[in-house]
Amino acid sequence: MARIVQKYGGTSVGDPARIKNVAARIKAIRDEGNELVVVVSARAGVTNELIARAKEVCANPSEREMDQLLAVGEQETIALTAMALHGLGVQAVSYTGAQAGIFTDKVHTKAKIRTIDAKPLEKDLNAGKVIIVAGFQGINDEGQTTTLGRGGSDLTAIALAAAIKADKCEIYTDVDGVYTADPRVVKNARKLDEISYDEMLELASLGSKVMQTRSVEFASKYNVVFEVRSSFNHNPGTIVKQEVAYMEKVVVRGVAVDKDQAKVVVSNIPDKPGTAAKVFRALADANINVDMIVQNVGRQGVANLTFTVPQTETAKAERTLAPVLKEIGGGNVSVDEKIAKLSVVGVGMRTHSGVAATLFTSLADAGVNLELISTSEIKISVVIARDQADEAARVAHAAFHLDEI
Amino acid sequence: MARIVQKYGGTSVGDPARIKNVAARIKAIRDEGNELVVVVSARAGVTNELIARAKEVCANPSEREMDQLLAVGEQETIALTAMALHGLGVQAVSYTGAQAGIFTDKVHTKAKIRTIDAKPLEKDLNAGKVIIVAGFQGINDEGQTTTLGRGGSDLTAIALAAAIKADKCEIYTDVDGVYTADPRVVKNARKLDEISYDEMLELASLGSKVMQTRSVEFASKYNVVFEVRSSFNHNPGTIVKQEVAYMEKVVVRGVAVDKDQAKVVVSNIPDKPGTAAKVFRALADANINVDMIVQNVGRQGVANLTFTVPQTETAKAERTLAPVLKEIGGGNVSVDEKIAKLSVVGVGMRTHSGVAATLFTSLADAGVNLELISTSEIKISVVIARDQADEAARVAHAAFHLDEI
Repeated sequence: MARIVQKYGGTSVGDPARIKNVAARIKAIRDEGNELVVVVSARAGVTNELIARAKEVCANPSEREMDQLLAVGEQETIALTAMALHGLGVQAVSYTGAQAGIFTDKVHTKAKIRTIDAKPLEKDLNAGKVIIVAGFQGINDEGQTTTLGRGGSDLTAIALAAAIKADKCEIYTDVDGVYTADPRVVKNARKLDEISYDEMLELASLGSKVMQTRSVEFASKYNVVFEVRSSFNHNPGTIVKQEVAYMEKVVVRGVAVDKDQAKVVVSNIPDKPGTAAKVFRALADANINVDMIVQNVGRQGVANLTFTVPQTETAKAERTLAPVLKEIGGGNVSVDEKIAKLSVVGVGMRTHSGVAATLFTSLADAGVNLELISTSEIKISVVIARDQADEAARVAHAAFHLDEI
Repeated sequence: MARIVQKYGGTSVGDPARIKNVAARIKAIRDEGNELVVVVSARAGVTNELIARAKEVCANPSEREMDQLLAVGEQETIALTAMALHGLGVQAVSYTGAQAGIFTDKVHTKAKIRTIDAKPLEKDLNAGKVIIVAGFQGINDEGQTTTLGRGGSDLTAIALAAAIKADKCEIYTDVDGVYTADPRVVKNARKLDEISYDEMLELASLGSKVMQTRSVEFASKYNVVFEVRSSFNHNPGTIVKQEVAYMEKVVVRGVAVDKDQAKVVVSNIPDKPGTAAKVFRALADANINVDMIVQNVGRQGVANLTFTVPQTETAKAERTLAPVLKEIGGGNVSVDEKIAKLSVVGVGMRTHSGVAATLFTSLADAGVNLELISTSEIKISVVIARDQADEAARVAHAAFHLDEI
């Protein structure tokens, strides 16, 4: 008998038939004598429908009300999933984020989990019930509904797995696991059996789209071993865990492409101590995620700052920066949305040299120009033209022989 | 400046355009300097969609999960209504039932309000915000979502009006107010300017469909004066309040027809003390509303019990009665769903005689057979064949000159 947390994403619970399919999977695991906590997302499409309705009544909906609105998506799924289990004769009970004791900070639409009070949930678990928890949502200490941002349901699952000391955490999605590259783009991409948190983090943050960064960070911090796998078959997935020694033998684990970023150039700002700090403080206060920062000092005491932000936040970034530039005495903002970020990731980079040279040479040979470069211990990222991104991924995948290992 | 509670029903908030219309009405009242708490229902149709989805995953969904599911309908509307107000520059904040401190008992799908802790709501009200509260829902002392049953949003509004000591409570619906009869059936039916709680109670419980009984009872108990009016125009509605002397001058206030009832006959049960008690105790424990009870003692020590129940509960009533009949030693249950209940209501009946005679004579002249009769101080009800109900309503309306007063 094990204590298992499972998470099913929006496509897995996309309609009543799929919810019944998920219920059958849950019953099979339950029948083996396991304790089960199941986190579900809103069914695919619901969130967009709700957002569309919000935009119809108000051009710029408040984030507090958006949270109140979006939380209904998961609330529908938990009730339907519990009912589907009842239909199979399985005792089950649904919990909203608030009912599951998921307490967050006050930042609407992007709340962070502070604590989980799992006592009521443990009680039902001990009574032999399957617990169905609404992913993506929580409650702040004023009793307001909050949501955890993109990929929030994964975070709910991993945080619950830590809180109830689960033996296993399974993240069910519509892909079979983590691949060496996007299989739709790179035909001979392979599924990885295992990957370290750090590698997964870099891949997640760089657009492999399997999971959001925060969930992996949380898992790493609390050492929650989890498996990413498909709810549409019974294939084993990819296990994400602490790095172990043999992992270092593989220099590059995978290639990730992120087409959802935009490049922002803040040019001609006074080259004085504290200017960059003011720019990034303002962006941070507006909750805009900034990545790949490069600063050049130009001629005549002016500097250029270049960085990437999620495309959805370019307008907000421009709005945020306007008063800052006024305050620091000048500067212009320009945005280029036609870029992509390509990265190669592997913990083996720590102990192997020449990775950057191999990457840059292969891309140069393919005629791909590098607009920005940034590196960490276990990854190298480059910003390139978006229309060259797929070809660049294939080239990099081949350069590191990722189809062979 | 007044403190006003308003309630808008499902058709009033049926789509984003109508929600914006409601927001405009709210803004107008707010701009006059009033404090506003607004209760909204789920948009029309949502509840049925959710129930259909529930039936797809489970033939007989649990009531606890049904509450969890149905609560999402109102949660969507509150967020959208608050957003629509923001779009008009009005400060507004949405509250779920739980957030509004609406504590209920544990009876899922038909919970009763126990207490309202309006402190958080008062705080936002004092800060000048319009408060949007989800109707129909509450929370029990185990933190589970409950719903208040049909017409629950009206109850939410009236209970909140009592809790925050509102000066006015306005129930907006898709009709102009309470009529002397259903205007779709009786062409010369008139809208009433005022009606007493007792009359409204009888009309509500008898199928005038404007409001459910419980809300009116609650209003009467806490002396909440409320107005039933339309959200689609600015006509004055019908004010419901304590009885005043001049109301007695009108003998019959209105004619109501309820086509949602069925007649249940429990025949050939032993005529012993306690048998009827056992039958109605079992129905009460199953939360089945029983009305118009008549008992005949037949030959040879057997008795017949006849009563009406909501049509939706006939199957449940039959299931509930089967073991009871076994226990009391025999009897049969038969159900007739092709009936209607017609009632005439008026506080003036207390002091006027001959009302029953006028009603029975007029119906007999029209060839309408009476299957059951029951009377109270201020109403006379008869069960008749459903296909004669509309004609019977017209005949009774004319017999009491309700178009003239």
